Amino acid sequence: VHISQGFDSGSIEVLSAEAPDAIRLRLRPDNAASFCQWFHFRVHDVAGVPLRMVFENTADAAYPDGWPDYHAVASYDRREWFRVPGTRFEDGRLIIEHTPEHSSVYYAYFEPYSHERHLDLLGQAEMSPYARVHTLGATVDGRSVDCVVVGAPSPERKPVWIIARQHPGETMAEWFVEGLLARLLDSADPLARRLRERACLYIVPNMNPDGASRGNLRTNAAGANLNREWMTPTVARSPEVLCVRKHMEATGCALFLDIHGDESLPYVFIDGSEMVPGVPHNMAARQAVFLSALAEASPDFQTEVGYTPDRFGEEMLTLASKWVAHRFGCLSLTLEMPFKDNHLLPDARVGWNGERSKRLGAAMLQPILRDLLSD
Amino acid sequence: VHISQGFDSGSIEVLSAEAPDAIRLRLRPDNAASFCQWFHFRVHDVAGVPLRMVFENTADAAYPDGWPDYHAVASYDRREWFRVPGTRFEDGRLIIEHTPEHSSVYYAYFEPYSHERHLDLLGQAEMSPYARVHTLGATVDGRSVDCVVVGAPSPERKPVWIIARQHPGETMAEWFVEGLLARLLDSADPLARRLRERACLYIVPNMNPDGASRGNLRTNAAGANLNREWMTPTVARSPEVLCVRKHMEATGCALFLDIHGDESLPYVFIDGSEMVPGVPHNMAARQAVFLSALAEASPDFQTEVGYTPDRFGEEMLTLASKWVAHRFGCLSLTLEMPFKDNHLLPDARVGWNGERSKRLGAAMLQPILRDLLSD
Amino acid sequence: VHISQGFDSGSIEVLSAEAPDAIRLRLRPDNAASFCQWFHFRVHDVAGVPLRMVFENTADAAYPDGWPDYHAVASYDRREWFRVPGTRFEDGRLIIEHTPEHSSVYYAYFEPYSHERHLDLLGQAEMSPYARVHTLGATVDGRSVDCVVVGAPSPERKPVWIIARQHPGETMAEWFVEGLLARLLDSADPLARRLRERACLYIVPNMNPDGASRGNLRTNAAGANLNREWMTPTVARSPEVLCVRKHMEATGCALFLDIHGDESLPYVFIDGSEMVPGVPHNMAARQAVFLSALAEASPDFQTEVGYTPDRFGEEMLTLASKWVAHRFGCLSLTLEMPFKDNHLLPDARVGWNGERSKRLGAAMLQPILRDLLSD
Amino acid sequence: VHISQGFDSGSIEVLSAEAPDAIRLRLRPDNAASFCQWFHFRVHDVAGVPLRMVFENTADAAYPDGWPDYHAVASYDRREWFRVPGTRFEDGRLIIEHTPEHSSVYYAYFEPYSHERHLDLLGQAEMSPYARVHTLGATVDGRSVDCVVVGAPSPERKPVWIIARQHPGETMAEWFVEGLLARLLDSADPLARRLRERACLYIVPNMNPDGASRGNLRTNAAGANLNREWMTPTVARSPEVLCVRKHMEATGCALFLDIHGDESLPYVFIDGSEMVPGVPHNMAARQAVFLSALAEASPDFQTEVGYTPDRFGEEMLTLASKWVAHRFGCLSLTLEMPFKDNHLLPDARVGWNGERSKRLGAAMLQPILRDLLSD
Ligand SMILES: [Ca+2]
Ligand SMILES: [Ca+2]
Ligand SMILES: [Ca+2]
Ligand SMILES: [Ca+2]
Repeated sequence: VHISQGFDSGSIEVLSAEAPDAIRLRLRPDNAASFCQWFHFRVHDVAGVPLRMVFENTADAAYPDGWPDYHAVASYDRREWFRVPGTRFEDGRLIIEHTPEHSSVYYAYFEPYSHERHLDLLGQAEMSPYARVHTLGATVDGRSVDCVVVGAPSPERKPVWIIARQHPGETMAEWFVEGLLARLLDSADPLARRLRERACLYIVPNMNPDGASRGNLRTNAAGANLNREWMTPTVARSPEVLCVRKHMEATGCALFLDIHGDESLPYVFIDGSEMVPGVPHNMAARQAVFLSALAEASPDFQTEVGYTPDRFGEEMLTLASKWVAHRFGCLSLTLEMPFKDNHLLPDARVGWNGERSKRLGAAMLQPILRDLLSD
Repeated sequence: VHISQGFDSGSIEVLSAEAPDAIRLRLRPDNAASFCQWFHFRVHDVAGVPLRMVFENTADAAYPDGWPDYHAVASYDRREWFRVPGTRFEDGRLIIEHTPEHSSVYYAYFEPYSHERHLDLLGQAEMSPYARVHTLGATVDGRSVDCVVVGAPSPERKPVWIIARQHPGETMAEWFVEGLLARLLDSADPLARRLRERACLYIVPNMNPDGASRGNLRTNAAGANLNREWMTPTVARSPEVLCVRKHMEATGCALFLDIHGDESLPYVFIDGSEMVPGVPHNMAARQAVFLSALAEASPDFQTEVGYTPDRFGEEMLTLASKWVAHRFGCLSLTLEMPFKDNHLLPDARVGWNGERSKRLGAAMLQPILRDLLSD
Repeated sequence: VHISQGFDSGSIEVLSAEAPDAIRLRLRPDNAASFCQWFHFRVHDVAGVPLRMVFENTADAAYPDGWPDYHAVASYDRREWFRVPGTRFEDGRLIIEHTPEHSSVYYAYFEPYSHERHLDLLGQAEMSPYARVHTLGATVDGRSVDCVVVGAPSPERKPVWIIARQHPGETMAEWFVEGLLARLLDSADPLARRLRERACLYIVPNMNPDGASRGNLRTNAAGANLNREWMTPTVARSPEVLCVRKHMEATGCALFLDIHGDESLPYVFIDGSEMVPGVPHNMAARQAVFLSALAEASPDFQTEVGYTPDRFGEEMLTLASKWVAHRFGCLSLTLEMPFKDNHLLPDARVGWNGERSKRLGAAMLQPILRDLLSD
Repeated sequence: VHISQGFDSGSIEVLSAEAPDAIRLRLRPDNAASFCQWFHFRVHDVAGVPLRMVFENTADAAYPDGWPDYHAVASYDRREWFRVPGTRFEDGRLIIEHTPEHSSVYYAYFEPYSHERHLDLLGQAEMSPYARVHTLGATVDGRSVDCVVVGAPSPERKPVWIIARQHPGETMAEWFVEGLLARLLDSADPLARRLRERACLYIVPNMNPDGASRGNLRTNAAGANLNREWMTPTVARSPEVLCVRKHMEATGCALFLDIHGDESLPYVFIDGSEMVPGVPHNMAARQAVFLSALAEASPDFQTEVGYTPDRFGEEMLTLASKWVAHRFGCLSLTLEMPFKDNHLLPDARVGWNGERSKRLGAAMLQPILRDLLSD
């Protein structure tokens, strides 16, 4: 059996592929770190052939809790991705059993979002009368860190920052941005029109294009987990964070969202900043209004399941949303979407996916506007 | 100058069209009633020619208040409609001054919605796994009164009825339904998914297809204003209302929306049923929650400007939403959108239009779900 | 069973529809003539119901030879039309047996092409930098006779006239024009570019919009068969021909195509003008080159089956292509496409249809250019 | 000025970019060979800024004749590419002067075709009922060499092979294949239908995906010019040719096309195999019929300008089309499209481009079918 990975975010190690029903694979770690969980590969010429693929090292993955109840995604045309029912976690190993309907089939940890699509997204934004693309800096590999700026700065417009995909394997974060941007740049949508009046939005669709293109799960090309670099970013290790932080200092920040995916929890949730030292005393209340408005706009969102406030311990201020809350005293949130399905509103056919992430991005305009109006 | 109207909803009387800068027109009344306000016609072979068109009888229109601050819509390709800045109301006459950029140009009172598009809308709904089209009866001219049914009836699903375009010239009502249906049948949208769980929706995109196709403003082919027929509809005069009422009796009704356009007020607003005899005592509160949820979902909506509660006087129970409130004791609302622009969020280029009506229709899912969940 | 026809080109007479398996219908004749063959109607609320529809008067149709080997077309969404295998001609009556998969289903003699789509086609042409819409006159009912003019007249550009749908039920003729226009207005297509250099094209997508909208087979609103009116068209009876002939006199004509459908012959073929008195002696040769070029460009076309040269007898010069050949001495052809399938290249699923007619229209650019270059 | 190239086929060396009007660049050679000519890069944050970019080493390019009369292509959104009028070749250096209208702008030697788009093309083919994707082997970098197979092998179907993009910078070759495949898989097109009956087509959209993704002009990742490897391909140096040749031996070959771009000649032309030792004596005549049929189908094609028969000298049999002619005795042709414009039918706005290459690919069905039918 021929297996390839020579494309954007391709990642797998093939131990043995002699028999289609006994394919042995290994998750490949990030290029300069030991995290592994992301996979993306193509199996060739297997129409009608029962495949059995065993991932030998899934127990060593970054998030072993990610495997129970998880189903891999697959696609024949790279547009429609579906969950593979014959995915199971057994004796500490992920197993995918599937009989493809067409010659070539792609399997991935989650619906991919390529660097080419990323650049197309920027190109579309560039053509909108409401947006321009501003490049904030360069990555370790020399790619650009791009920011879609919606609205010219003015006293009436509060600075809102939205960043996504610090962890490159969390592609749902960029799908989310695609949905948010499509609505934000819609000339007929009243929430978008009001938001464009009240805010100047700085949106970074992909904080980590190197890691994304390389097929990393959590780190950039230098092996840095960018979401632990916000206290002391450096040119050598985390230029992506450094350049964003620098521009944020120039524009200020009235509201901050950092968009993520969570490997383990099958829910959409928000991790807030009420525990961050120095945030205004009304932060918890303001946060509660935001969460309530999001829950109104999107039944995919909930507030019962989430992280405990002490989850990040001493690292706390190295995280983007905590650091921003601390630095700017503004509402600053981390949004998490599932790699698995959303148990609140499950869909066995596709699980949580790109389309659903886009709907959530579009819905996000509502709590943002509510927060700006009430502030 | 050649002027034609031989197409769906075409309507104009040409008094004189010898000189392009002195075209004299009259609004044509409904086919069996004296209401006039709707117009829709095409002017031929006038690229680069300054046109001046005077409507001689605008003072006799159904809503003379509709003309101040009104701008006609125009299109070259029947897809993009724009407002004509050179529209004015002067000495009791509407005047349109415009120099077309292409040979043929269409002018209309509002962005049209044809019977062919109506049938295409039904056809698309038919193909959705979530909907089927059920025909409730026949119109005076023999067209069908169609209902898109979303969801199979069950104890968990409350019956929600949405009807539109009782007044056929109010095309924004069907654009609204198009937007609402597109979202309601979206497999990825969480509001739609929850709504499909909680409600069985009966949606009549066009209550008055005869009047619509004939280019009437307010009445059906028999001259009846359908929104005054709900107490005593008859086969001869208002079969459209009769068949809908009959099916509503069979399904029950937990929530009712009647979608309209208002010629005079440049706002989106809702006329409620708190004044209807016999409605439950908590109706005003329930209504207030609904309105508040809609305002959250759509900044195009507001609650300050609207009709006074005594507007309809003794006729009150002949109106759809009042009759339904009286009969079923449910939340029952009339939504009004402007023919002019929305002064709350104006857009000089297009004014209120089809696209904005669609966005409002999509936003409406949110208050509907809120009401169902809180009931 | 509820059956409706209140839409563009709707046409049927219902004798009895009490039992779905015993529906009795009659073809409805043209509004002012006795021709009947076209039908187009919708059956409501019949998902999963076995239908048996008998047309009682098919033996009296304009072309009884049209029924053997014929299969009706059907659609649920008015976009995808398929042939109904359970169509048969038995004891002089057409019978359609079909069990619909969705609630509403449309049946027609051939894939319809509505007046609204006709106007959209003109609107799209209007927006092209290469075309403008010129209105030549008005129909009996007051609709416009529109001509898409491609190219400004100049000595280097020969006048080419293409007319379609003199017989309104021959909708394939307008599908053909849609395909031809799409290619002709393509900025990247080299055949189109050369043709726009060498010719000024006058294209009348629908000669008979009244008959089309009314659901007639062969005649206009006054009952005239327009393709027998070219010798002596009159304002009262055939204004559509009169206005086209008048403009043709003004522009001249170097090549003429008249696009039709044939009820009986299951082939695409061309009827030429070699037999017309007074045509240049080299006409047969020029015609043969044209036919050969079309056969190269489209394997759907053939030259073995067609009309005999004496088919039209004394009426000959009343036909468009013969009259034009006689008057202008130019290459002048009638193209015929089948209502049935094309036996040369059959497709049981869809038969001959709109898409295939469009491909043929696109292919037609090649023989036209060949003729212009060789002349 | 910030310049980036971190994307598919990105390639440039920046000597100095301090002043926007004095940017100094160098063409970057292929990764393992000295050929240089391809460039593709993005300039950031330069809306309204006059740029002057000088390529210092254009005289050392693989084809110095490629620069006179050449205009670079540019795009803001990566979808619409236009020629930059301010491109000139002066004192042996290529200079681009341009003032971008948007923040970010891409410049390239020709409209790019990315590896992601390549995989999408395969994915679409995979979903067609008429095609399947068969992987022939692996490249030096481990990407797959994919073949779209149209038609099941049978005695009635002759084997036709079409390969493209041996030279990876010749992206027009893959645009050509995209146009050819779109038509070939069209269910309504009669040329496609006949061809699917008469031929089994083996289409390799990209022979050199490594070089393409790396931004090479002429060679694969090992530095081999694949079109000089057909006599003695090796696993180490030219596995791409080796695997294709092997499958060609298995299927046989009745007609072969190799699709290319030419840097110097501003014409579309074909280089034949009449000079190849051992080809059948009637080859020149068969070839002439093919060329004539292509000229009929596409006025972009011509036969006056092209290569001289002795161009390749002793290397001749190392070229794909010559080797195939020699080995299989079949019609075997190299198609060349211009990097510049087509002087036969110039378009100053876009020059030769992807769309025009697609039209040529679609037109190619006609001579292929002609050849198969006449053989
Ligand atoms: Ca995460
Ligand atoms: Ca009204
Ligand atoms: Ca006929
Ligand atoms: Ca070349």
